[in-house]
Amino acid sequence: MNKAIVLVSGGLDSLVSAAVAARDCEELYFLHVNYGQRTQKKELESFEAICRHYAPKRAEVISWDWLARIGGSSLIDTNMEIPTQDPTDEVPSTYVPFRNANLLCAAVAWAEVLGANSVYIGAVEEDSSGYPDCREVFFSAFEKTVETGTKNLIPIKIMTPVLQLSKAEIVKLGLELGAPFEHSWSCYSSNDEACGECESCRLRLKAFAQAGHTDPIKYRNKQK
Amino acid sequence: MNKAIVLVSGGLDSLVSAAVAARDCEELYFLHVNYGQRTQKKELESFEAICRHYAPKRAEVISWDWLARIGGSSLIDTNMEIPTQDPTDEVPSTYVPFRNANLLCAAVAWAEVLGANSVYIGAVEEDSSGYPDCREVFFSAFEKTVETGTKNLIPIKIMTPVLQLSKAEIVKLGLELGAPFEHSWSCYSSNDEACGECESCRLRLKAFAQAGHTDPIKYRNKQK
Repeated sequence: MNKAIVLVSGGLDSLVSAAVAARDCEELYFLHVNYGQRTQKKELESFEAICRHYAPKRAEVISWDWLARIGGSSLIDTNMEIPTQDPTDEVPSTYVPFRNANLLCAAVAWAEVLGANSVYIGAVEEDSSGYPDCREVFFSAFEKTVETGTKNLIPIKIMTPVLQLSKAEIVKLGLELGAPFEHSWSCYSSNDEACGECESCRLRLKAFAQAGHTDPIKYRNKQK
Repeated sequence: MNKAIVLVSGGLDSLVSAAVAARDCEELYFLHVNYGQRTQKKELESFEAICRHYAPKRAEVISWDWLARIGGSSLIDTNMEIPTQDPTDEVPSTYVPFRNANLLCAAVAWAEVLGANSVYIGAVEEDSSGYPDCREVFFSAFEKTVETGTKNLIPIKIMTPVLQLSKAEIVKLGLELGAPFEHSWSCYSSNDEACGECESCRLRLKAFAQAGHTDPIKYRNKQK
C-alpha cells in the first residue's frame, strides 16, 4: 500500500501535488507548517479547506515560531519589503533559509513513524525564482540524506510531481485531476483578497492565463 | 572569522563539541531544542548552565511540540519503556526519528541568516547504539544537502568533532579543554538525580571509569 505524507502549504503547487498523491496513494497524511509567514492565517484556512476536500487519514499543523524568530526573509520579517518586480537571477528576499529541507525533515520523521513510503512536496524548479532548495540537485542530495539517516526499513521516496513543470502546466494538471483551486492561496502579502501584485500572485495569474482558465480566487488588483 | 552554531543538548557529547567550538571559533551561537523528551527540564537547565560557562553571543531555545506529538520513541513516549540492557545491533526504541537531520536543518537555517560558516553537532558513531543518523555516511550526505539547498554564499560546514571518538576519549578531550562536566546531563529517564541504569547513564559511567576520572554528577544507583 502506498502511504504518503504530503506537505500542503495551501498554495497552487502543493495543492496539485496533493492531487497527484491522492491519485497515486491509498493512504494520505497532510502536513502544514506555520512559520510566522505574513499570510499564515489565510494559508491555514486553505489547508483546512483542502483537507476537507481530500479527507486525509490524519492532518497535522506544526508551529515553528523559531523560524519566524531567526528571520532573514521578507516573507516573515515585516520590516522587509515583498518584491513586486519580475524575478531576477538573484535569490529573492522572500527566500526562507533552508525552508524546504526543514519541511522535508519533519515530514520524513513522521513518515518513519507511520511507515509511509513517500513524502510529497510541491517545489517547482523553473518558476522558483532562484530558490536553491527548489532544484533537482537539492532533492537528490536530500534523498541520500534520508536513505542514510533513517532506519530505512521502508525506504522513503521524496516525490516532487510538479518540479519540472511550468506554472501553466501545473494549472492544467490540477484541472485534469479536479484540484479545488478555489481553496488554494498564493499571495505573499495579504490575508484578505489576493494582492495581485506580488511575485507569487503575478506568476499565478500568468499561469492561469496561459492555461486558458480563469483563476477562481478573488484579486484586489489584477496587473496585466 | 569563524562563526559557529553549536547544537547543545546538555549531554556529554554536545558539551565537549561546544568546548571544541569554543577553542576553534571566534563567535559562538548555541542552539537547544525541547522536543518533549522525558528529561527536557533537566536538559534545559544543563543548557543554561553551559551557556553561562561559554557565554555565546546568542543562545536560542526552540520548542518542537510536534516531534513529541508524532512520537515513535521511548525517549518521548512515556508509554514505552527506556531500555536498561546493553546496546544490541538493532536500532533501539530511544531512537527519535530523523532527529539529527531535523536539528541540523534548524541550525543550518540559522547559520545562513547569521552568515556562520559551521554547525557543530556532538554525534558519536561508535557508541551510537545503531542510530542511523549518527554515522559518517549520513553527515556526508547531509553536507551535500546543505551545499545544494542553501544560497551557499558562505559555505556551511557540518562539524562532528567527537564522531569517531570513544566515550572515554570524549571525556579525556573534555578534560583537556576544561569542559564543565558538572553541568552536563546524559540520563534518559530522570529529571532529578541521574538513574545510573539507563543505556545512556551506563555508557557515561563506563567512559569516566575508562578515562580514570570521577563523574562529578550525582547518581541514584551506580551499576557496576
